[in-house]
Amino acid sequence: MSINVEFINPFIESLLNVLSTMARTEAKHEAISLKESPEARGDITGMIGMIGNKVKGSLSITFTQSVALDICSKMLGEKFTEVDDSVVDLVGEITNMVTGGAKRILADQGHDFNMATPNVITGLNHRIHHQCQGQIIQIPFKAESGKFYVEVSFEDVK
Amino acid sequence: MSINVEFINPFIESLLNVLSTMARTEAKHEAISLKESPEARGDITGMIGMIGNKVKGSLSITFTQSVALDICSKMLGEKFTEVDDSVVDLVGEITNMVTGGAKRILADQGHDFNMATPNVITGLNHRIHHQCQGQIIQIPFKAESGKFYVEVSFEDVK
Repeated sequence: MSINVEFINPFIESLLNVLSTMARTEAKHEAISLKESPEARGDITGMIGMIGNKVKGSLSITFTQSVALDICSKMLGEKFTEVDDSVVDLVGEITNMVTGGAKRILADQGHDFNMATPNVITGLNHRIHHQCQGQIIQIPFKAESGKFYVEVSFEDVK
Repeated sequence: MSINVEFINPFIESLLNVLSTMARTEAKHEAISLKESPEARGDITGMIGMIGNKVKGSLSITFTQSVALDICSKMLGEKFTEVDDSVVDLVGEITNMVTGGAKRILADQGHDFNMATPNVITGLNHRIHHQCQGQIIQIPFKAESGKFYVEVSFEDVK
């Protein structure tokens, strides 16, 4: 099974764009992998469902607490020291913006999908398991404050 | 803001039906509430996005470990003592079946929506935060092995 780069690059591009413009945070992505290893583990995760005519799936962005607090501090220009409601809302907002940006790029390429509403999961050291019959792609990112993980899963609509 | 019972009852009916037929588990729902209190907290959660022409949202089912293990043991007819890959898959499957059942009932009533792929979150004592501009409805259930929580959120598609 091969990774469909055409489908994944828009998510990377959108995430880097959101972090750069909204949080003055530069990040780099590391090697993309098909998910076979243990799931992304982190302290706060934004998640959203996607449904198109041909594919459906979901996206998750999993941060450690320190990375989430750093990004949210930069976004709002005030220091966050704990994962409170504002941080939860911001992670939901980031998830929405990243997926929305990718949606626009993919629509230009003829791949239309709609987005559900985001959810945010908190709790130290939780794990995300995408349940999908198709590909689950993990993209590790590295920012100054640490690493975080985007996972995108797709399967064909029957 | 009032709870739209017409929209919520199909999820309750479908969940009770799935548990009864697949896991020989009888459960009762307790008082439905609009979510203002702290979020559902549990050890394993199944989650799925929903998108219709008029509304979009998500559903989550949050179990304590003991309830999830009991239901999965009854479903597969073998004793589960830890949350392993089989339990994760089953919780994803339950989430899919409950939402699929509600989808069919709602379609008969003229409310069509499509479902994304499910995700399962593990990690002791995590919390789920539905990020939604509309209603977030919490439905507590009680089974012999303990309590669990269904949360459904909807907002209008713009």
